[in-house]
Amino acid sequence: MDDQQITIARNYLVGSRGRLVLDAMPYRGAAQVLTVDEADPRIPVYVGDSASGGTALATGTATSIGRVSTAAGTDQKLASVMELASAAGFATGVVSSTSITDATPAAFVAHIDQRYCQGPSSMELVDKTHPQYSTNCSKDYKSRGGRGSVAEQIAESGLDLILGGGLRDFDQPVEQGSGTTVLDLARQNGFSIIRNRSDLASIRGQDRTIGLFSDGIMPVKLRGSGGAIAEFVQREDGRVLWPEPFACEDNPEFADVPTLAEMTGAALRRLDGPRGFVLMVESASIDDQAHYWRTCGHIGEVGQLDEALALALDYAATHPETLILVTADHGHAAQLIPETSELAPQEHASPGRFARIRTPEGGIMGVNYSTNDSPDWEEHSGVQVPVYAAGPGVRALPPFMHQVDVFGIMLKHLGLGTGTAGTH
Amino acid sequence: MDDQQITIARNYLVGSRGRLVLDAMPYRGAAQVLTVDEADPRIPVYVGDSASGGTALATGTATSIGRVSTAAGTDQKLASVMELASAAGFATGVVSSTSITDATPAAFVAHIDQRYCQGPSSMELVDKTHPQYSTNCSKDYKSRGGRGSVAEQIAESGLDLILGGGLRDFDQPVEQGSGTTVLDLARQNGFSIIRNRSDLASIRGQDRTIGLFSDGIMPVKLRGSGGAIAEFVQREDGRVLWPEPFACEDNPEFADVPTLAEMTGAALRRLDGPRGFVLMVESASIDDQAHYWRTCGHIGEVGQLDEALALALDYAATHPETLILVTADHGHAAQLIPETSELAPQEHASPGRFARIRTPEGGIMGVNYSTNDSPDWEEHSGVQVPVYAAGPGVRALPPFMHQVDVFGIMLKHLGLGTGTAGTH
Repeated sequence: MDDQQITIARNYLVGSRGRLVLDAMPYRGAAQVLTVDEADPRIPVYVGDSASGGTALATGTATSIGRVSTAAGTDQKLASVMELASAAGFATGVVSSTSITDATPAAFVAHIDQRYCQGPSSMELVDKTHPQYSTNCSKDYKSRGGRGSVAEQIAESGLDLILGGGLRDFDQPVEQGSGTTVLDLARQNGFSIIRNRSDLASIRGQDRTIGLFSDGIMPVKLRGSGGAIAEFVQREDGRVLWPEPFACEDNPEFADVPTLAEMTGAALRRLDGPRGFVLMVESASIDDQAHYWRTCGHIGEVGQLDEALALALDYAATHPETLILVTADHGHAAQLIPETSELAPQEHASPGRFARIRTPEGGIMGVNYSTNDSPDWEEHSGVQVPVYAAGPGVRALPPFMHQVDVFGIMLKHLGLGTGTAGTH
Repeated sequence: MDDQQITIARNYLVGSRGRLVLDAMPYRGAAQVLTVDEADPRIPVYVGDSASGGTALATGTATSIGRVSTAAGTDQKLASVMELASAAGFATGVVSSTSITDATPAAFVAHIDQRYCQGPSSMELVDKTHPQYSTNCSKDYKSRGGRGSVAEQIAESGLDLILGGGLRDFDQPVEQGSGTTVLDLARQNGFSIIRNRSDLASIRGQDRTIGLFSDGIMPVKLRGSGGAIAEFVQREDGRVLWPEPFACEDNPEFADVPTLAEMTGAALRRLDGPRGFVLMVESASIDDQAHYWRTCGHIGEVGQLDEALALALDYAATHPETLILVTADHGHAAQLIPETSELAPQEHASPGRFARIRTPEGGIMGVNYSTNDSPDWEEHSGVQVPVYAAGPGVRALPPFMHQVDVFGIMLKHLGLGTGTAGTH
């Protein structure tokens, strides 16, 4: 997310004169994102993906698009904050509303050449169907001495708690023809597997748990009224037919899964203790919903982030040594623009997808998605992303940083590093 | 400007691993912009213009699009920070790289129903040619007992220094058929008029000066190589013909006018003194160049802002009671996106205007303008805008505010108010 998604969500959820929980954070800065070219890592690439962004945050190193905590060009494994913290005795957890094998959570747990090598079967698929990717899964097969898919690496990881979607990447054989599934592998490594919202309450003190609450991405909280999304603006005889404004409504599918706040609450209860802990929580579908022109979708997922943050701040209120950082892996396509063209509303409108959203406070927001004419998705943005922080020393953080510096801030707080900038 | 224009400029001017002067400011937050409907000011409007944004900053009140320091619906005159400061004995100045009659500088000096009532002749033009505007100039004619055009109000103002473009709004009769020009009016009010870069050095201690260095908007610093700008992406047989990357070059017209930094330096020399002062400096054409798809143009104008800021910081280093605020009236269309589509580069590209910019550090930036299909301009964005600050107490400023709160921050620093939020 970037400031666009935050502003759009604020206007809808609390009104233009209101404040999100996020807005009350004592520190806010901006982080320059940076990705590098796979073939020549000296060449900067200005727009990244969740893999390169997640890797920058988790490891403090700029890498190429698609890479998960491995170095551009060399495939060198990059140590993540979770591994360093775990080795130093901290409890560790990852929560995400997407598949927990997706790039951002994966960057905190796994190391792989190509983000879409999410489960054993998807490794073969990636190599067959996406030869254009700058990296592939070929070196990562376990049968070839590799580290295996992201799901296999999660199953064999040392984390204490992992909650999210992505069951399908685990509920499959570790290798074609094998009788052992990735779930079996996880159980052999000491994980309990939970699959229902009601199981969250049963997570016990020392259990190591993987929670998988949906096959892939978890359902989101809000949708456009009757499923409305942004669409290409229609014209008739050279005149713009402005789309009807719509409001947001609850997504019925959302009722069956735990909320991000419920998963966060369960994680805080599980990880709390004298060892201290590191927890990464991702409201993942702000990205996904913006890719697919679902304005109410990304509004609701900023809302989920805000609710999870409120819980974290409640925890920190009684545990003042807690550092909370909120940031993004990359910016996105959605843009808040006039709800009808200011200059020539009869003749001109966005050439891309456009939604008019009726807000509870009585206004109409124009939200534009116009980064390509693809039927498949919108592009990311390379805009600097917000960094919010609460906790010890946050007012001394610099207002501008590079995304890789977030890693150093975490390490310094954990007493595991100098807090200097990452390598980039 | 918003974080998009800043990131695009940083990548070009200092590189993705570099830092602008702006990036070294000790405080950075974000401000929610807010505009209201002219017919019913209770209804929020989520995307504003330079008039409503300038008014929010200058007066602490949210108004409707097009209004310059007058209240939506009622036309009530709203007191500006310059007027309050001047009445309290502070020296006052306004510097802008656009016409000094344009909406943002005007909001600090004048009060008018409609921003385009910039000079006596443009008042008639607005009312004849733009009946769709929600406000007009009809009540503001001097002959009808009004306050006159923006140029006339500047000429009759109490400011000490005004530097920028916009000569054409002053070099004309105050009323049709009259032998008195607006320049005459200004001279009668004690202003010296300067028109050349070399005159800047001659501004003396107590002179009150209006500097007009171009007919309208001042020429900008950079342009695309050979004049290149973003254009609609061409397709042939269903395949995308990606535009050739281009670099930026000096705009030859820029050599004849003072830079924003030169005007800022002259203003600081003139206004410095025991009375203290308030100075508003605007790098105005970040907006203008983004409206017209001129990527190198807005990159260069962020650069001009950065150079002017460096001078202000130098001044503050020896005058530590100085408060420096850097913010924007509204966000804009330009978006940093992948330089070729990530998913399907042969088939899909932006449906809007798109430029590929070759950066000095060896990368290529994709910059997208796709808010409407108009041949005339791009739209603004309603995204929250950055607020940077340096000076006494800035680390205690809240990371999130509303745009109208900037007015309160200025007043508090000047000892003229409580520093509470403006009315909105």
